[in-house]
Amino acid sequence: MTDDPQAPQGAAPHDEVDPVPELDAAAMAEARALQDSLTKPPGSLGRLEDLGVWLCGVQGCSPPRPIRDTRVVVFAGDHGIATAVGTSAYPSSVTAQMVANFVHGGAAVNVLAALHGASVRVVDVSVDSDYEGLAVPASVTRHKVRRGSEPLDRADALSAADTVLALQAGAAVADEEIDSGADLLIGGDMGIGNTSSAAAIMARLTGADVASLVGRGTGIDDDTWMRKTAAVRDAVFRCRGEAPEPRLVLQQVGGADIAAMTGFLARAAQRRTPVLLDGVISATAAVVAERMQPGSSRWWQAGHRSTEPAQQRALSELQLQPLLDLQLRLGEGTGALAALPLLHAAGAIMRDMATFESAGVATAVVERP
Amino acid sequence: MTDDPQAPQGAAPHDEVDPVPELDAAAMAEARALQDSLTKPPGSLGRLEDLGVWLCGVQGCSPPRPIRDTRVVVFAGDHGIATAVGTSAYPSSVTAQMVANFVHGGAAVNVLAALHGASVRVVDVSVDSDYEGLAVPASVTRHKVRRGSEPLDRADALSAADTVLALQAGAAVADEEIDSGADLLIGGDMGIGNTSSAAAIMARLTGADVASLVGRGTGIDDDTWMRKTAAVRDAVFRCRGEAPEPRLVLQQVGGADIAAMTGFLARAAQRRTPVLLDGVISATAAVVAERMQPGSSRWWQAGHRSTEPAQQRALSELQLQPLLDLQLRLGEGTGALAALPLLHAAGAIMRDMATFESAGVATAVVERP
Repeated sequence: MTDDPQAPQGAAPHDEVDPVPELDAAAMAEARALQDSLTKPPGSLGRLEDLGVWLCGVQGCSPPRPIRDTRVVVFAGDHGIATAVGTSAYPSSVTAQMVANFVHGGAAVNVLAALHGASVRVVDVSVDSDYEGLAVPASVTRHKVRRGSEPLDRADALSAADTVLALQAGAAVADEEIDSGADLLIGGDMGIGNTSSAAAIMARLTGADVASLVGRGTGIDDDTWMRKTAAVRDAVFRCRGEAPEPRLVLQQVGGADIAAMTGFLARAAQRRTPVLLDGVISATAAVVAERMQPGSSRWWQAGHRSTEPAQQRALSELQLQPLLDLQLRLGEGTGALAALPLLHAAGAIMRDMATFESAGVATAVVERP
Repeated sequence: MTDDPQAPQGAAPHDEVDPVPELDAAAMAEARALQDSLTKPPGSLGRLEDLGVWLCGVQGCSPPRPIRDTRVVVFAGDHGIATAVGTSAYPSSVTAQMVANFVHGGAAVNVLAALHGASVRVVDVSVDSDYEGLAVPASVTRHKVRRGSEPLDRADALSAADTVLALQAGAAVADEEIDSGADLLIGGDMGIGNTSSAAAIMARLTGADVASLVGRGTGIDDDTWMRKTAAVRDAVFRCRGEAPEPRLVLQQVGGADIAAMTGFLARAAQRRTPVLLDGVISATAAVVAERMQPGSSRWWQAGHRSTEPAQQRALSELQLQPLLDLQLRLGEGTGALAALPLLHAAGAIMRDMATFESAGVATAVVERP
């Protein structure tokens, strides 16, 4: 099933040989020295200090510039497993309805983006709808790869060709956003059934037990959870014996939306553009992107810890500590947006605080341990 | 030592008999119904939903009004123990220098307040300085009770009269801020040596072992930590056999700054004004205020979990879950300010999201567990 005659030859969405750029070590060293000169005990702002140093590393200057153009891109797609097996509390039609809701500004991601000065773009990668009766502009479907992904318990979610197209679509979206001025990206998700895919991807990549990775998604009951877990286990069983090569994993148990998110995250790292990761879809795609392009994760921060177990596993694979832990499980980019003010705070601290010298404040008489 | 002939008779800073107002249960019920009607799976915004419901409870309406006037009050005071025993990495002169820094806008609290649209007021309750050579306006010392508090390992920190004056000062400051329009209060702290006091207060109130409550404060080394712990243990030992009546505890091992913070928090609850708690000083004063005036804590949220063990113990006494856990240990109000955007987010979600009905999105086909 992995041999697809339609697969473009050598058409990787990005050159996997090019190493991912390093953060600017000199700017980070300068940032650390600046942190210790500000009127506070060294280290007393904890992770806000680390975040500030990271910002200097990704921007290549100390203090960091204000983040002025945060873009949330919501990758939307349907998953055949939701309808075939019944793994969600909501019908698949909700994906298209929510795309319309994003376009009209009524979803949680819109509200939080407006509050924190970010913009929201919805990209329909694989929604199983033509939006009959819904007011969705054509621009939303410009990167559409297909309608839905196959039920992954019984068939590959995607063809090899579609997998490459979706990776390319995500990379193209990253390029569009970066070329038009984004200085911080957030990858959001919308797709009934997408947490089943994420659990299957994480199981394939890590070998972890499926039951330890399947969550409650939109809020399913015990029977639905058992059905969902069995379906994900079937998907993983179906692919047994195959090496978990990242692109193949996306093809077999992923989905076009998750593949697009993967291409988006990988391209952002290549383009030296920082990313705030969101929930389980974003974090799972990040693990795939990191496997494809090692070192990418240095360009990312984890916005929050979600209640989905596969997300927690993904963050631990990436060795990223989430900024927030507020029991969020909505996706869309909401957890990353909730954390965005912490990045602004970390930067402002470095730009605007007085130093011990400028404020005439005495420094420590005793060295800290 | 607890009999002080100068103690005003019956001059409690507030009437301890009046019960603390309840949150508005009807508004909270309405808020919960509203949350479930918004275009997201019920509960999927986790603690942001709970925060939104709490906002409705304190404001008495659903959805909540935007928070437009957040005031940070930094209570500043010196502690004799810092100089007498040497419990800090910084000399006591830093307290006055930092007061000047707050006035001139160069401290971390100023930067975060400016970023998040809050104001900062510094109240010198017991700084051991007359600001010779420092540009500090007279308004800062309007509520000054005394210069420094006594070294608590060998004497009561305060007289009974000063304890009452400090509680009254804090209540008066709360009244001033609320009467001039504050709709959210944050109590911040500045005072070299104040974490020793906080540890002693928490030990007296809870009976917990002193060593489990003493932290690294400004970042002290092992020798200083041992000296600090021994001094706090001496203070607690000095008061053995006395019942841990809250006002007496402030007098014996507290300080005028912490007593003022206590009066401030208690009065805010009486005045139906929500508070975001900050670090160890703020949380310790909150425990004292809750003991004086049970039920006050329903008007408070915990901004963050600090690295100071006494703060973690205090939050657990108050049964408050911190919003952030970012290894902060600066005080000043910075941890509460870092969490402030989460309150704004919680309110905006309730005001601005579309409902399933208004957006034409299908609701769950399966009930959540």
